[in-house]
Amino acid sequence: MTDNQFRDAAAGETSPLERRRRSGGRGAERSRKPAATKYLKLVNTLAKSTVLSEDALEAIHDASLTILEEIGMDIILPEARDRMKAAGADVTPGTDRVRFDRGLIMEMIASAPSGFTMHARNPARNVEIGGNNLVFAQIASAPFVADREGGRRTGNQEDFRKLVKLAQSYDIVHTTGGYPVEPVDLHASIRHLDCLSDMVKLTDKVFHAYSLGRQRNTDGIEIARIGRGISMEQMQREPSLFTIINTSSPLRLDGPMLQGIIEMSSRNQVVVVTPFTLAGAMAPVTIAGALVQQNAEALCGIAFTQMVRKGAPVMYGGFTSNVDMKTGAPAFGTPEYMKAVIAGGQLARKYNIPYRTSNTNAANTLDAQAAYESALSLWALTQGGGNFVMHAAGWTEGGLTASFEKFILDVDMLQMVAEFLQPLDVSEDALGLDAVRDVGPGGHYFGTMHTLQRYETAFYSPILSDWRNFETWTEAGRPTTYDHANRVFKQKLNEYERPPLDPAIEEELDAFVARRKEEGGVPTDF
Amino acid sequence: MTDNQFRDAAAGETSPLERRRRSGGRGAERSRKPAATKYLKLVNTLAKSTVLSEDALEAIHDASLTILEEIGMDIILPEARDRMKAAGADVTPGTDRVRFDRGLIMEMIASAPSGFTMHARNPARNVEIGGNNLVFAQIASAPFVADREGGRRTGNQEDFRKLVKLAQSYDIVHTTGGYPVEPVDLHASIRHLDCLSDMVKLTDKVFHAYSLGRQRNTDGIEIARIGRGISMEQMQREPSLFTIINTSSPLRLDGPMLQGIIEMSSRNQVVVVTPFTLAGAMAPVTIAGALVQQNAEALCGIAFTQMVRKGAPVMYGGFTSNVDMKTGAPAFGTPEYMKAVIAGGQLARKYNIPYRTSNTNAANTLDAQAAYESALSLWALTQGGGNFVMHAAGWTEGGLTASFEKFILDVDMLQMVAEFLQPLDVSEDALGLDAVRDVGPGGHYFGTMHTLQRYETAFYSPILSDWRNFETWTEAGRPTTYDHANRVFKQKLNEYERPPLDPAIEEELDAFVARRKEEGGVPTDF
Repeated sequence: MTDNQFRDAAAGETSPLERRRRSGGRGAERSRKPAATKYLKLVNTLAKSTVLSEDALEAIHDASLTILEEIGMDIILPEARDRMKAAGADVTPGTDRVRFDRGLIMEMIASAPSGFTMHARNPARNVEIGGNNLVFAQIASAPFVADREGGRRTGNQEDFRKLVKLAQSYDIVHTTGGYPVEPVDLHASIRHLDCLSDMVKLTDKVFHAYSLGRQRNTDGIEIARIGRGISMEQMQREPSLFTIINTSSPLRLDGPMLQGIIEMSSRNQVVVVTPFTLAGAMAPVTIAGALVQQNAEALCGIAFTQMVRKGAPVMYGGFTSNVDMKTGAPAFGTPEYMKAVIAGGQLARKYNIPYRTSNTNAANTLDAQAAYESALSLWALTQGGGNFVMHAAGWTEGGLTASFEKFILDVDMLQMVAEFLQPLDVSEDALGLDAVRDVGPGGHYFGTMHTLQRYETAFYSPILSDWRNFETWTEAGRPTTYDHANRVFKQKLNEYERPPLDPAIEEELDAFVARRKEEGGVPTDF
Repeated sequence: MTDNQFRDAAAGETSPLERRRRSGGRGAERSRKPAATKYLKLVNTLAKSTVLSEDALEAIHDASLTILEEIGMDIILPEARDRMKAAGADVTPGTDRVRFDRGLIMEMIASAPSGFTMHARNPARNVEIGGNNLVFAQIASAPFVADREGGRRTGNQEDFRKLVKLAQSYDIVHTTGGYPVEPVDLHASIRHLDCLSDMVKLTDKVFHAYSLGRQRNTDGIEIARIGRGISMEQMQREPSLFTIINTSSPLRLDGPMLQGIIEMSSRNQVVVVTPFTLAGAMAPVTIAGALVQQNAEALCGIAFTQMVRKGAPVMYGGFTSNVDMKTGAPAFGTPEYMKAVIAGGQLARKYNIPYRTSNTNAANTLDAQAAYESALSLWALTQGGGNFVMHAAGWTEGGLTASFEKFILDVDMLQMVAEFLQPLDVSEDALGLDAVRDVGPGGHYFGTMHTLQRYETAFYSPILSDWRNFETWTEAGRPTTYDHANRVFKQKLNEYERPPLDPAIEEELDAFVARRKEEGGVPTDF
């Protein structure tokens, strides 16, 4: 026995022999089961991590209210200023500036619900927002799209549809998040009609309407209503559509966003108020300062939803990260991002409002960076109590590009997060004392009944991880995660099937879209 | 204004324009500062995550003590059985089997210290083990080594030395962990002499001696003593060397490992007891069952250290993961691994013993898989309260290969974890109200005094992340994380400088090694 073999035998940890039991047969060939329905509803019972003491949380809260009282926000829509003034805000005549007494803000915040259901046309796809619920939404709003063969290209309808089909294909992607890529080959005047019609037909999940003027909001609401086959009264009882409201940081809310709040909140649809506060660019260079500004802007937007309609469903969005101060490039999935995400969760829970976060990275390709920045994002938002995760699958290059391969990588990572959150089985059977008695010292568990009864479902079977041994992997051409993801997204698109849709609903939808197109959609200046 | 531009202006989150401020100049060219000394000592004040209820924790504890009482362990060293018998254990005559009353185990466990210092020859490199301290050790014991140019090859002294130099080059790598790669070009009889001599000369950090028979342990202790330039009495007061003790799961402790405990614990050096319990192979197929077995084996080994010497420094090691049940290949950085790591932390804290974990992955190359499996490992061990992290930098392919590029990737990720753990500055200055007052609605923070005073140090500057915009990155040849890591490790090796060493100590060390070589080192049968 050589010294090395001796140590191998003695030390399980260091034993290549043990690990050489790896054999081939995995990867391309392995069978894939349909996505487990356990991914339809995710509950995160982890105790929430914190990065702010109670005092620090209070200091950020207090500073943000001071901003709203002393400095105020520019509210760039007369109707919104009028509503705010009616609610008791201090509007400076002849300007956009509105200041808010902290008592007014807190009174409005108090009426926002702590949780609600978003209704899909397929009730199995309804999502619960708030509490310990965790909901993942696909990437939204990328101007570019990429896959390995096609490279990086401007968004278009064909890729839009493929990405929407992929969102439908995995239960872990609970909702779409907007247009996964902007289909610029569709004229802006009718783009929302085609895209939202596709959302209804190609998926049976909840979807999003952009707040780009009153008409697009009301068209979106009507399409969601038709898709569900319900009355407007029922639609108003059952929130079924959401919109992202970004502030124009620092301290501004633009007209279309304010209009979006008015249209959506007044009809009891979901508003996600998300300041985009990059520390050092649109917000102070410190994470604490950026959080103060995030909180001021978020509270202002949320308060406005409640001025429009008490009890309207709304989420507290956090999107604070840092920039690379050498170049001004935005950075994501950084240690600073992690802290901001966790602190944002503390703020949202303080106000008892569901918390929206994002799965981010700034990588240009599907390399290790894409994975570690996303994994660090998922770490923070899971431990920090995120309820609704935008850009959960497909986001790359700081949101500039929707990547087909990254979509699959993200789905795999999201499923791993979901598996991590499944309770550990500690039943007597799982503790396995009898199995240990059977095997005893020096045996192995490969062929025991305890193992045979469980081995097929005992562990998560990843989509992409290549666990073949080095030799087999080399014979297979040394595929990377990128290669596997490329193969899987194409396979998944081939397997895609439209979810059932009542022909009467489809007819009504087509008629609505046709009529609105005849009317010219939404007027544009080009 | 086009519709798209309109939305861009309205919605910060969706604005490509904002993000186009990215410019070139990052990556290869960026200057790197010396590693921050803040990485020398890491404290993890996060509240520890849990996956076991109090009842479940108690059930695992109870089942593991039942195993030690009813089934027992095979203790494959007469001297160890004699010591156990003397301490009160039930040794079955004529066999290796030893059974332990739960009272005996718990009495022994109670005398293990909750924390201690491991002393390096440079006191600035001493590491605190236990409590909220977090210590990272380099990869150990890989039979293969790899870099991009050289491919995957059998371990050798040259690569061994390069990896040890890299460990010295980053403060975030607090200790080496063993031989980062096995230098098989050195004969096994004298390998430990050359390798440990290198550890003293090429680093000033704490190091590890393999437990491969009494003589290698005592040689290791003597080399550590000489390196520190202290007496054996002082060495016995100040633990300065550690050894990993792997059980031969299931339920066995082999001769060299038991001998290692005797040699190391009797001299008050550090023993890290680590069962290697792959669920479905050497342990039950359920994570709960594997944890039960891990706990039984760990408690047995830890108890034995205290039978050898009450109060001897010891760590509770957890290394439970799952196998791919289709092939038997071990899997790492999985959701199951995450749960096992966090549960292991709960067990170690229950016994008030420092907790050893690992930064793992099973990737064959530096792709996204390598990053996400490692990131998930780091997530679990950080949130789960790991104190001492073996294989923190350089481990790939399930431990079969030490990768130069993965070493750099891990260093970057470890530094990100460290940055995440730095307290968030919430001073009045950091809250930045005055900066918000200065900028007001609609401005930006790029040129403000608040930003200018902080921008150079405000955020972590990653080693590898490539945040250049897509065009600049494309012009640069589209480098991936792998490319950057390849460049950095070579650059870092070029910059390596030996840490100062008293010439008298070096002389004494050389004389000891020469004498022991003349004596033939340690006899082998080949």
